[in-house]
Amino acid sequence: MTSLAPWRSPLSRALHRNRSLAYARYFQLATVRADGAPANRTVVFRGFSDRLDMSNSLKIITDHRSEKIAQCAGDQRAEACWYFPKTREQFRLLGTIATVTNQESSEEGGGRERVTTWQNLSDGARLQFAWPQPGDRRAEDENAFTPEPPNPKAPPETFVLLYLIVKQVDWLNLRGDPQDRIIYHQNADGWEEQSVNP
Amino acid sequence: MTSLAPWRSPLSRALHRNRSLAYARYFQLATVRADGAPANRTVVFRGFSDRLDMSNSLKIITDHRSEKIAQCAGDQRAEACWYFPKTREQFRLLGTIATVTNQESSEEGGGRERVTTWQNLSDGARLQFAWPQPGDRRAEDENAFTPEPPNPKAPPETFVLLYLIVKQVDWLNLRGDPQDRIIYHQNADGWEEQSVNP
Repeated sequence: MTSLAPWRSPLSRALHRNRSLAYARYFQLATVRADGAPANRTVVFRGFSDRLDMSNSLKIITDHRSEKIAQCAGDQRAEACWYFPKTREQFRLLGTIATVTNQESSEEGGGRERVTTWQNLSDGARLQFAWPQPGDRRAEDENAFTPEPPNPKAPPETFVLLYLIVKQVDWLNLRGDPQDRIIYHQNADGWEEQSVNP
Repeated sequence: MTSLAPWRSPLSRALHRNRSLAYARYFQLATVRADGAPANRTVVFRGFSDRLDMSNSLKIITDHRSEKIAQCAGDQRAEACWYFPKTREQFRLLGTIATVTNQESSEEGGGRERVTTWQNLSDGARLQFAWPQPGDRRAEDENAFTPEPPNPKAPPETFVLLYLIVKQVDWLNLRGDPQDRIIYHQNADGWEEQSVNP
């Protein structure tokens, strides 16, 4: 199934129409903690995967030392909530998270995409992967935050590529009168969509 | 403990500095579904509770027929993720959800605050509580979305007030150089705060 999912078209339109807002490329990613409580944080959309076996999967990046990684190792389920302020649309994307760490060397397994994603980052974004342990007591030596810049060609161990593999999308358009809402659900035959009450 | 929690001050400042953006009053609320998967959606901040026993709790509203209600009945744990675009700050608010439905008639139990919150809504916001069942196949009769307006003085059964009772706050300021991050945690003696690595 390498064809474009039907929700890709309204999502692309939303990205285009909100392109003047840098933060329209941010969304909130919910996962589940080891104790079963939900966790929620803002992440940056890094585009869709180029991999044939990962089509329709959203790319994000994280630090291997972040809580997200431990949470996804325990329970891969996640829901992204993506609100577009200019067009007043919300996409809820439910699915699972797959990680590509530095253990993944095969090109097919995402090793190549991990490297190209790293190479496309800004210097400032790359530097954060050499910062001290996230969540630990604040480093007293502020030089810890101006480390030797990492190699821009080869990602460090801390750099992890994540895919959100989408199984269901709930699209709400608040501008409709009344609001429009469509649920896209993936089943064995492909994607089905259903217009529902907002 | 009716005193203002220490994270209220940076949150108030963020609300003030982002006040030109209507959507800076929206945040994403993560809960857990019956099957353990996370759920995530955008909600509107309706202010802090006036109740002495609910100080530092955020008010939101929902329809009794929404999935949130069923999810919170099963597991009350929730995390809000609130991103402020203008000041580039994120607040993650971890806690539990308490609901006030039309079953709650005592003034102390939130019955009064449920009524005043209803009365402060716009006509358009109130109308949605008389719309057909959310998530059901789209009503074919579009008149279903222009029902008789509900009584602006007395909330209908579908109207539910929710409190997010906050236990921990993770404040990240991306504008810091390097970024600032403070974790506020409630324990038996009150709130403690700790500066941590971003």
